[in-house]
This record gives sequence, structure tokens and C-alpha cells, in this order.
Amino acid sequence: MADLFWPGDERAGELFGQGAFLAAMVRVESAWLGALVTAGIAPTRARADLDTVVGPADLAGISAAAESGGNPVIALVDLLRTRGGDAEAASWIHRGLTSQDVVDTALMLCARDAVGSVLAECDQQAERLAHLADLHRGTVMAGRTLTQHAVPITFGLKVARWLEGLLDAREQLAGVRLPAQLGGAVGTLAATVELARLGDVAEPAKAARSVTSEAAAALGLDDALPWHTNRSPVTRLADALVATTDAYGRIANDVLVLARPEIGEVAEAAGRGGSSTMPHKANPILSVLVRRAALAAPALAAQLHLAAAESVDERADGGWHVEWSALSTLARRAVVAASQTTELLEGLRVDRDRMAANAQAAASSLLAEQASIAAQAADGPAERLADYLGASEQLVDAVLARYHGGTR
Amino acid sequence: MADLFWPGDERAGELFGQGAFLAAMVRVESAWLGALVTAGIAPTRARADLDTVVGPADLAGISAAAESGGNPVIALVDLLRTRGGDAEAASWIHRGLTSQDVVDTALMLCARDAVGSVLAECDQQAERLAHLADLHRGTVMAGRTLTQHAVPITFGLKVARWLEGLLDAREQLAGVRLPAQLGGAVGTLAATVELARLGDVAEPAKAARSVTSEAAAALGLDDALPWHTNRSPVTRLADALVATTDAYGRIANDVLVLARPEIGEVAEAAGRGGSSTMPHKANPILSVLVRRAALAAPALAAQLHLAAAESVDERADGGWHVEWSALSTLARRAVVAASQTTELLEGLRVDRDRMAANAQAAASSLLAEQASIAAQAADGPAERLADYLGASEQLVDAVLARYHGGTR
Amino acid sequence: MADLFWPGDERAGELFGQGAFLAAMVRVESAWLGALVTAGIAPTRARADLDTVVGPADLAGISAAAESGGNPVIALVDLLRTRGGDAEAASWIHRGLTSQDVVDTALMLCARDAVGSVLAECDQQAERLAHLADLHRGTVMAGRTLTQHAVPITFGLKVARWLEGLLDAREQLAGVRLPAQLGGAVGTLAATVELARLGDVAEPAKAARSVTSEAAAALGLDDALPWHTNRSPVTRLADALVATTDAYGRIANDVLVLARPEIGEVAEAAGRGGSSTMPHKANPILSVLVRRAALAAPALAAQLHLAAAESVDERADGGWHVEWSALSTLARRAVVAASQTTELLEGLRVDRDRMAANAQAAASSLLAEQASIAAQAADGPAERLADYLGASEQLVDAVLARYHGGTR
Amino acid sequence: MADLFWPGDERAGELFGQGAFLAAMVRVESAWLGALVTAGIAPTRARADLDTVVGPADLAGISAAAESGGNPVIALVDLLRTRGGDAEAASWIHRGLTSQDVVDTALMLCARDAVGSVLAECDQQAERLAHLADLHRGTVMAGRTLTQHAVPITFGLKVARWLEGLLDAREQLAGVRLPAQLGGAVGTLAATVELARLGDVAEPAKAARSVTSEAAAALGLDDALPWHTNRSPVTRLADALVATTDAYGRIANDVLVLARPEIGEVAEAAGRGGSSTMPHKANPILSVLVRRAALAAPALAAQLHLAAAESVDERADGGWHVEWSALSTLARRAVVAASQTTELLEGLRVDRDRMAANAQAAASSLLAEQASIAAQAADGPAERLADYLGASEQLVDAVLARYHGGTR
Repeated sequence: MADLFWPGDERAGELFGQGAFLAAMVRVESAWLGALVTAGIAPTRARADLDTVVGPADLAGISAAAESGGNPVIALVDLLRTRGGDAEAASWIHRGLTSQDVVDTALMLCARDAVGSVLAECDQQAERLAHLADLHRGTVMAGRTLTQHAVPITFGLKVARWLEGLLDAREQLAGVRLPAQLGGAVGTLAATVELARLGDVAEPAKAARSVTSEAAAALGLDDALPWHTNRSPVTRLADALVATTDAYGRIANDVLVLARPEIGEVAEAAGRGGSSTMPHKANPILSVLVRRAALAAPALAAQLHLAAAESVDERADGGWHVEWSALSTLARRAVVAASQTTELLEGLRVDRDRMAANAQAAASSLLAEQASIAAQAADGPAERLADYLGASEQLVDAVLARYHGGTR
Repeated sequence: MADLFWPGDERAGELFGQGAFLAAMVRVESAWLGALVTAGIAPTRARADLDTVVGPADLAGISAAAESGGNPVIALVDLLRTRGGDAEAASWIHRGLTSQDVVDTALMLCARDAVGSVLAECDQQAERLAHLADLHRGTVMAGRTLTQHAVPITFGLKVARWLEGLLDAREQLAGVRLPAQLGGAVGTLAATVELARLGDVAEPAKAARSVTSEAAAALGLDDALPWHTNRSPVTRLADALVATTDAYGRIANDVLVLARPEIGEVAEAAGRGGSSTMPHKANPILSVLVRRAALAAPALAAQLHLAAAESVDERADGGWHVEWSALSTLARRAVVAASQTTELLEGLRVDRDRMAANAQAAASSLLAEQASIAAQAADGPAERLADYLGASEQLVDAVLARYHGGTR
Repeated sequence: MADLFWPGDERAGELFGQGAFLAAMVRVESAWLGALVTAGIAPTRARADLDTVVGPADLAGISAAAESGGNPVIALVDLLRTRGGDAEAASWIHRGLTSQDVVDTALMLCARDAVGSVLAECDQQAERLAHLADLHRGTVMAGRTLTQHAVPITFGLKVARWLEGLLDAREQLAGVRLPAQLGGAVGTLAATVELARLGDVAEPAKAARSVTSEAAAALGLDDALPWHTNRSPVTRLADALVATTDAYGRIANDVLVLARPEIGEVAEAAGRGGSSTMPHKANPILSVLVRRAALAAPALAAQLHLAAAESVDERADGGWHVEWSALSTLARRAVVAASQTTELLEGLRVDRDRMAANAQAAASSLLAEQASIAAQAADGPAERLADYLGASEQLVDAVLARYHGGTR
Repeated sequence: MADLFWPGDERAGELFGQGAFLAAMVRVESAWLGALVTAGIAPTRARADLDTVVGPADLAGISAAAESGGNPVIALVDLLRTRGGDAEAASWIHRGLTSQDVVDTALMLCARDAVGSVLAECDQQAERLAHLADLHRGTVMAGRTLTQHAVPITFGLKVARWLEGLLDAREQLAGVRLPAQLGGAVGTLAATVELARLGDVAEPAKAARSVTSEAAAALGLDDALPWHTNRSPVTRLADALVATTDAYGRIANDVLVLARPEIGEVAEAAGRGGSSTMPHKANPILSVLVRRAALAAPALAAQLHLAAAESVDERADGGWHVEWSALSTLARRAVVAASQTTELLEGLRVDRDRMAANAQAAASSLLAEQASIAAQAADGPAERLADYLGASEQLVDAVLARYHGGTR
């Protein structure tokens, strides 16, 4: 996949793409069918591996057919039943489920893969940042507040802060809970209970709940009560995804400032950022594209909170439907930004000399606070920027300790 | 095109899709090349019809190549020059332009088609609404405020208000100005002026500006000063698109309320809204999907305003890049919602009897205000709901007059 | 008024503040009452100047009482009737109106004053920008795209673009239509018609509509059909307000970049931007605060579009109520940002020498495009940055012509 | 406090209001001063209780003075030093801190109180909901999806889902970490270290960090590394606050639907929801106002994520300043909505008979799924709605178990 409107989108590959979503819906139907058989509600011969029955070639047709019912599940189930072997066995497909079960659970499956991808990038980024923080713990540079020179810092400390932001976001993302959604038309499992009852299964309600647990386990998702109108699984996921793009945006912004030619303290790796007409150009394009994602993500997460706030009845009349595209887009934005950030950090070029020169040229500003303190104490002003780094070393150590604590 | 995450998306066909965007970028290069020739800056043999040179098969390649420079134009120009005939002639392709010129102008071309589609739907909707307003000017129903019975209205008046909202949105959309963006690297036309100078064209700066006028005219877009960092063309377009989904959302919300079985005053046409498990279901699915768009659009327009607010330098470092996907998505959402609303309105079934019955059952509430007024005047309460419709007729007439005034 | 959470808020004075809103509601009741009398619906002795009856001291009480009915009008009317003279005359207060009429019309009155303030600032800014554009039409500086040196421009051209963005926003804002909202409980004017009928006024429906026209005229607002659930007056206002903060944000961003000490091409006037601990600090604080508004406004406008999209029935169940605070906040943000931008521009210090030095230091980059063009034409590279300004002069002239055309 | 634009605002009292924020800033200065003394950096006589030195009467002045430096701290410190006793002792006030330390830590103090208030409401709501879920576990009603009748549920199950959504939100909110922000100009603690050094305190860096720990402990906040440009404390707080309004919105939406007169299954307690003209009106006004907050909150949280994404340098140039108002507003919206929801739930009137009647009238629809299943199994259709409730009982039990598990 590639997207002319979002350069770099192909980094996300099939993650949370339409094909992946279709495949995930099929997996949900498969897992549920298997669980019905295991519970003795459906006959053994109903068990079927549906995964190969529907494929990418069906995407356009199912998508187009989705409008009639408002979601793609009716068309999908029709196809599965038609192609799913003998008619009686195939009639067990989707029994007990509702469209929302299939869509929501498939969204969670897609989310899991996207989250996994972002977490893996986080780990690589954290390793790189930890290295840079340690390497540059003595690299003095100008600290800047509200665009102006403030007080000296080290580049290691700046990087340690990028790392801390990243660890916070990673922690939030790693804590996200991805539950299966399996409840039937209104989340009472009524159809499954009824099927169990008609099939003389003992304790039908208990049997129905065991089907949900079994299917969730088969899919590797959390077993949860139906959440058709309680969308916190979606919003917490969205919160965590936007937390990652927040952290990436902050890094990209710093690179964009420090890579300005008049500052020139860092640069992206060579090879990207050309222009269609200016031969000399080497734009910090990864940073630009990461910043783009950071600007886009908050509104997407807000969309998902709004959807949650618009829940009503036993299934929302639009609040639900608005989620799918926003969630897919947000997840892909985060995956792409994560990958771009990894490349950005791996290739980041740090110009210690320029940092030193810029800081030295601004030394009187950068040491003005110190001078004012010293004057009050009737002491002399510091001569070296390195004498006014405060607890920078200790702060770098503290972040690195958190990182190493977390990775051991 | 169809989108598994946005049922109904295929209604927008290729409008503002990736293929349309690619084709539009090629058209921009063609028009510019032609204008360079016309101005005598490029040689006659440089003129070329590029439209068939690049096609859908190139989409994936160009998209993937777009990341390196941050936008698809470098890859596109490479392809055009490679395939565009003899090398010297082809070397004139893109001369004087910058990537942003091509992207922005192509966005406006795509926008024009999408806007045209929405306007056409608006016209059809307005005709239908004018008919319904007139037809139901005497159809008494309960007026409802804050979900509760208030005072009687007519269904004709309700529809007249839908119409007025629609006419407001249509007016805003029809007033949108779609300018070409043709300014070169920093919007000074420096390269074009230089080419004119080197080619001994008289008054190079004037010649360069004539190239922009000629190209804009060839594309059917407004001739405007470069707006690389003044994004009001984009935000005004976004404002107008979201105004249409606002108007549609308001209609959809009313249908969703009135189609509740306990109210039952309107229904969508039969044939849609089935369920995967409940055979009786006839969900008002077009309304649900239209409402979905109305919930999604404001955040997309906000995205574009944020992008405008983030302009900086002579080209923004992310603020520009975040626009493309948001604008394409917003335009497609509006086109799809417009088409769905047309179908919704064409098929809308109005149950006068149910309206009458519901209103009659609530008559004492609906006439409570009247009774209170009458009591103060020592007059008797109204006996009929139709006696307390105020200026409903005149208000319907006023909206219809606006509509007929606007369509003649 | 001042707001600890929004430094500079006091620049907006009482504009669209709570006191202004309360006073505006009273004016609406006064104007309506007068119009009822004029139409012969209410007796002559009912006419009353209510403006002094309720004041700032009542604000807290009315605000607290507003929750019960969901808006402040019931409490306000109670107070007006209690204090408004003899009971029978006072009983005519608010007759024929509904709460939403009073709130919405008062919002428009407040909006008018805020819009007027922003427009006045725009005029002052435009004058200043036109001056600067002309003054600096020959001040060469580096053009920058994606943070990197691109091609030379003049500071005059940059300013001309600020001006063009401002003129676009001003045009949008000046075109906003501010209608009175006068329709009664469900927008049918039923109560007013009934009062006219009971008072033996001829043609009661016509009389009722003349009351709305009269009241609108007295308030200086557009006479419009009731728009209780058609919120385009609100959204178009919001669109225009955010267009101004977009334009201001773009200016502020440029100042923030150019004022970085390593660039140093512009500075804010001295006297602001101090630090609590760093004696040397002169932060470009007006730009920071303007940028803040530009970041905040898009979400507020989106809030208002969402509210419009959530209209339903004859009065929305929350969609309406969410507008008031968002609209007041957005308007005040725009007023404050407008005032700060005026001060910013008036005091802006431009360092031509630094611009020249920076550009000269980057000359080989800034002229690389020219060199590449010249080389293809077997011509020599330009020696002076000023030789590669393209049509900068003409573009400045074009913007100034628009400005002077608009101000004559 | 009361807000004419946000009826019900006075429920939040002073929580996260301007006065509370001012008082919190003073407490931060006090705690820091105390910690400096404890660490032996400041002399003992520098210890001062500043809490009474500045009060509400200073609010307007400090607010107005805040613009010059971009935040209120300079003006506050000037006042504290002027009034804080002997000049030399008073000179220790704010030593080592930066404005952002004071503002951010004060925001966290305000947040703590607001969060505490919401959590307390959550507990009361949960108790009420647990009671209702249990009470109505056998109260059959129509389940509705996409506005149409679906399959029967119980009101107890619906309430159990409200409870589950609430418990999710509560869990998220209770998990929020509120850290002190104490780092000096660029977060290196340089000034504090310098003061320690000049005061001959052993291990100055260690001493400085002990000051932060001590001050954080005194304020009851988490001791954390400086987070000036890592805004995850703010975004996680915002995420959690909007999660609560999401949960409340979902409840309000259900009440608004079920309270429609044609449905009539629930009603708000009597006494609110009157109209200015319609004497019979009893609008579900608490639900309307809660829904309002749910519509407003997502955009506010998005604002805060955007601010986080805009971090840059060692202090952001606008991204920081945009947070304060958004955070205060979001917190107050949540507090007010929480309180309104508690009152809504305490007073909620449930009409079992109407639920039964509505469901019975729709029985053939509600049992259509069951009939279709039974037919396939050659079994007869259910006769009673209560026979098709699936695992409703068990699901109610599961939620109640979670609740009771959490409260024991």
C-alpha cells in the first residue's frame, strides 16, 4: 500500500489496511465458529477454516455492498456461507454474532498488529536515544526557551528528555487492553444462548459465555464483557497512539529548529530531502513528515472520543460508524511516524563543534542567570558554560536508569 | 474506489482520489508547459500532451517515491521527463515550477470536481425539499424542543428549514474561489523570469506573470498571486464543505428521531438497512451514514485551519503536508454524504397519519402555550392544533421564494 | 476583565464577556417589547426601557439560576418582570419570544461588537503592512522552505503576503451576516400571532412578522427567518474568526523564526518578554501569545460546526447549549490576538543588515537554482542575489494595489 | 463562580478557577522556599508562609500584568517579594525556579482537586448504578440498535453497562499521575545547584534534587524529573477527563432518547427543565447539559495533545501557553458534568410499565431473531420476551462483581 496523499504510508504495509481488516473479520468468524463447535453448540462438521475462502479479490465487492447494511459484515457472511462448503455446515457461520461483534473484534486484531509495530519501533528508538544521551552527556549547547537563548544544557540532556517522553508514550501504549467484542445483537448473547438451549447444551448461558472466552483466546484478545456502547477500549487505544505521535512531534520539532542552516547543530542523514528545482536542497524531510503526523493525530483521537460520547441505545446511530476510518488512519499515521522517527534518529548527525560555537557565541546570555546569582552572593561570574549545567548529569542518569530498568 | 472503512465511499467514484490527483498533477505540468511555449519562453517543440504519459499503473511507484522529497512531484517529473519525448524538449517540463505549485494546483482541480458534484446534489435536494415543503405545508405535526413536545408545526415548515440550511451551505460552497498556485520555489517566479531573460523574451517579469495567467486559464482555475503560505483558499473550501455536512447532519438527525418506531413519522425507502441476524430490521441506514459524515467533518476542517495557522517561511515544515489527506478525505466525505442525502430525500416516506395521531395525542401539551396566552386574555383555549401554527405558512413561502428566486 | 489563564485577555475588555451578554439579552427583550407596542399588539404603556433594570450585580444570580432551565432567560425574564414597573405592563415582557430567541440574538449582538473590533485592528494592521511592504520592497533576504535556504526574496514580499492573508481574512469577516433570531418556541411565531389575534390586530401573521423586522432593525441586526436549527450564521462567523487567527498565526510564526538569535532578522519592540530569572531575556512574547491563539482557534470553530451538525428537532438537546461558551471564547481569542498583532506589527524591528548578511552568507545556496538554470542555457551564474528576485516587485505591487483598491 | 455561558458551572465552585490557580502558585512558591531552607541553601529566616500574602484582590492586577512576560509568575513574584517581609529574606522567594515550574506545578495542584471531585462523584454514581442494575435486572425493555427495535434487554443490563463505562473511566482517572514541575530555567536545576554551591552546601547537585523532592512532598505531588517539554502528565490527565465525559455523555444520550414522550421509559426528577413560555415543559435538562459537556470535551483534550505535539526547545513558543485555559476549562466541564450526572442518576425515574408496554407492543420485532433461530431448529417461537434475554443476568452479575470487587 502507498498513499499519494500521505508520503511514507507504505511503511505501514498492510497494517490496519483494508485487506488486513477483511482478513481479520474472517478470522473472527472462524474463531467464533470453532468456539461454537468446541462448546457443542454447533456440530463438528461445521468447523471450517474460512481464512482462505475470502481474499483481497473480494475487497471491492464487499466494500461496495457494505453501504446497504451500513457495514461490511452482511456481504461478508453471505460470501462465507456461499463458499463455505455444504450448506448446512455453512449455515452455522456467524450464528450468535452481530455485525458489530465482527467489526469491533477485527478492529482490535488490526490494532494489535499496529500497536506491536509501534512498540517495536519504540524499543529501537529508545536504544538509540539511550546511546545518544550517554554519548552526549558532556556536549554543551545552548538551552533555548521561547525561541531565545536561556541557560546552557547538554545535548545528552535534550536527548534524555526525548527518551523520557518516548518511554511515557511507550508505557501508555503497552498498557492498552485489546478486548474481543462478542455479544450478539444487543450484547446479551441471546442468540448463542438460544442455540445452546435448542441444542440441549447444559447451562446455555454459561455455555454461551464459554464460547466468547474460547473465541477471544483463539484470537489472542482479552475476554471482556460486550462493549458495544462503552467505547473505552477504542479511546484508550487512541489516547495511546496520539501519545506516541506527540512524543515524535516533539523530537521532530527540535530537529527542525536545530537543522536550520543558521543554527546547524543537527542534520538528518544525507540522501533524502531533495527538491524538484533546487539542486542544493537537503530538507529535513523525515522531521517534516513526522511533524505532519503529530499535527494530524490529535484531531483523529478527538474524533474517537466524540464517537464514544455519542454512544446511545444498544448500538449507536453513526457514532459507531465514524470510528473505523479514524482508527485505521490514526493507527497508520502512528506506525508510519514511528518508522520515520526510527530512521530519523538512526541517521541523525550531531555537530558538536557547531553546538559549542553557537553556545560560546551566546555565552554572555547563557550565563546571565548565573552571573546575576553570583553577583547577589558577591561571587564572580562563571567562566565556562560547563560550570552552569546544574544537575544535567544526574538527570541524564535518572532517565537512563529508567530506561535500563525497563529493558532488563 | 470503495472503502471498507467508509461504506458508501464508492459514490464518490474517482473524485479527489489518488488517481484523480495524479492525473491532475499531470494536467498542471501540461498546462504550464503549454503556457511556457505560448509565452515564447520554451520552444514550440517542447509543447507536449503529457496526459497519457503517466497513468494509474504509476500510482504505486510515485507514491512510494514521494517520501524521499516529501511529496510526489520529483518522482512524477522524473517520469514525465523520461517518457516525454526527446530529452531536450522534455527538459522543459516543470521548468519554473516548484513542487508546491503542482500539488496545490492539482488539489484545486480535484476540489473543483468534488465541489461540482456536491453542488449538483444540492440542486437535486433543493428541488425535492421545495416540493416536500409545499406538499406538506398543511401537514400538522408535533414541534419538539429539547426532545419534548413544544408547540405544533407543519412538516412542510420543518422541510423548509432543511431547505434553508441547504441553501445557505450551497451558497457558501458556490462562492468558493479555486485559484491556481504558480509561483516557483518561493513564489517569486524567479526561475520563470530567469528563463524568459535567458531566452531574450521582452519584459521577463511580465512574461512570467502571463505564463501563470495562461496556465490558470487553461486549467479553468482562478489566476491568483502565489498563496504558498496563505492558505485561505484551502480553509474557505474546507469551511464550505463542512457547512454542507452540517446541513446534511441536521436532516439526518431529524430523520433518525422521527423514524424511531415509537414515533414512526418518517421512514427511509425500503430496501436498505438490513441486519446480519435480525430479519425484521429496516434501519434508517442512509441517515446513519450521513450523520457519521457530519460527525467526522468538523475535525477535518479544523485540521486544515490548523495547517493554515502553522504556515511559516516560504513553505511550511509539515503544516503544508498535513493538508492533502485531510482535504481529500473531507471532500470525499462531503460528496458521499451529498449523494446519500439525495437518495434519502428522494425515498423519504412521510406518514401524515402518524404525525397527526402523535400530535393529537399530545395536543394538551402542544397547546399549553396557547392556552396560557388565551387565559391571560380571558379567551378560550384553541381547539385545534392547526389554529396555533402562527406564521408557518408565510415562513414556508419565504423559504420557497428564496429557492425559486435562486433557481430562476 | 482579565484572565489568569489567558494573558492579554483584558485587551478584549467587555467584548463578548458575561456582562456584555447579559446586557445584550436585556436589549433584545427591550427591542422586542418596543416592536410589540409599535405593531399595536402590546399596549403603549407596556413600552419600557429595560436596559437599566438589570445590571452586573445580577450576573451571579442569573448565572446560577440558569441551570434549572438550561439557559439564563427564565431567570432574566423573572427579574425584568419583577422590576419592570406595573405588573400588567411588565407582563408583556418576553411575550412571543422563546429563550433561544433571546440567547441567539444576544450572541449576535456580542458578535457584532467583537467583529467590529477585529475589523478595526485589521485596518490598522493592513496600513502598517502596506507601509512595510513598500518600504522593504528592495530588502533582500533569504527565502526559506522546509526550514532550509531556498531562493532569495525581499522582506517586502514576505510582508505583502502577510498582508494578502490578512486581506483575505478581513474580507471573510466583513462578509459575515449577523441575523436576529426571533421566532418563538418552535420558530413559527405562534405566540405573537396569537397575541395579535387576541388583540384584534389585522392580519396577525403579517403583524407578527413586522414585529420581527422592527425588532431586528432596532437592534441593527439582519432580519432573517428563524434559524433555531440552521446554525449557519454561527458557523460562518466562526469560520471567519478562525480565518483571522490563521492569518495572525502565520505572521507570528515568521517572527518567531526570524527572531531566533542565530537568525536575528526581526525583533519585537523592546519592553516585553522578560523572564522571572534570566535578566537578559527579551522573548518575542507577543508572537508567542498570538501563535497560542492560532493553535487554539481551529478546535473552537470545529466545536461550533459540530454543534451545527448536531441540530435536531426544533431545538437541539445539547448541540445548542455547547455553542455559547465556544463562541464567546473564540471571539475573545480573535479580538485579543488582533490587538496583539497590531502591537507586534507596529513595534516590529527589522534588521536589514542582518538580512543581508544572512543571505550573503548563504548566497551559493540561494542562487543554486539560478546557477542550474543558467548552466543549462550556457549562461553564467548570477552574481547578485538581487538579480534573482523574479517578479517580487510586481507581486508586491499587486498586493498593494488590492489593498489600496480596497481602502479607497 | 458562575458562568452565564455554561449553566451549572457554579457546581465546580473554585475548582481550577482563577483564584484557585493563583493560590496554588503561591503554595508552590512557599513549598519551594521551605525546601530551600530545609536543604540549607536558603537561610532559616527566609522561610515564610506566603499563602496569605497574595489573595483574590490581586487577581486582576496579576492577570493584567501577565501579558508582558507571557505568564503571571513575574508579577506574582514581584508582589510576593514586596510583601514578603524583610527584603533579604524575601529575595529568596522563587530562587532556583522558573515561571514554568510555578505554573505547571500549580496546574497539577488544581488538577488534583478537580480529579478528586470527579472521583468522588464517580463513587456516588457507581453506588447508584449498582443499585439500579440490581433492582432492574428483571425489568424487560426493548433493546434498540441504530434507533430501531432489536432484541429484548433488561433495564438492569443497560444500567450495568453505564456502570461499566463509568468504572473504566474512573480507573483511568484514578491512575493519573500528577507530578510537580521543578527544574529551573531549562530544567537543569542550574540556579539551585549554583545557590547550593555558593552556600557551601555539600554535593550541590544532590542537594538541589533533594529540594525538588522535598517541595513535591510538601505539595503532595509526585516527585518527577522536569517535564517542561514532555507533556504526557497533561495529556494523560486530559485523556482521563474526557473519558469521564464520554461515559457521562453515553448515559445522557440514553436518557434523552428514553425520555422522549413517545417512548417515556425514564424521566428526570421533577423540578428542573421549565420553559420561559410553555408551562407544561419538563425538559430533561440535566441530560442536555451533560451531553453538552460530552460534545465539548474531546476538542479540549485534542487541544492539549496538540500542545504536547508542539513542544520544542526547552520551553515551547505557544504550545505551552495554550494549555492553561484548555486544561482549566476541561477540568471544570468534567467536574460540572460529574455533579450533574450524579443528580441525574439520583433522581432518575424509571417507568417499568412503559418499558413493558413498549416492549410488548414491539414483541414480534424484538423476537424476530429468536423466531428465525427457532424455525431453523424446527422449534417454536418464544412466547415471552423474558425468554430471550440470553446471558443478561450473568452479565449484570459480572459488572456488579467488578464493582463490588473494586469497592471492597
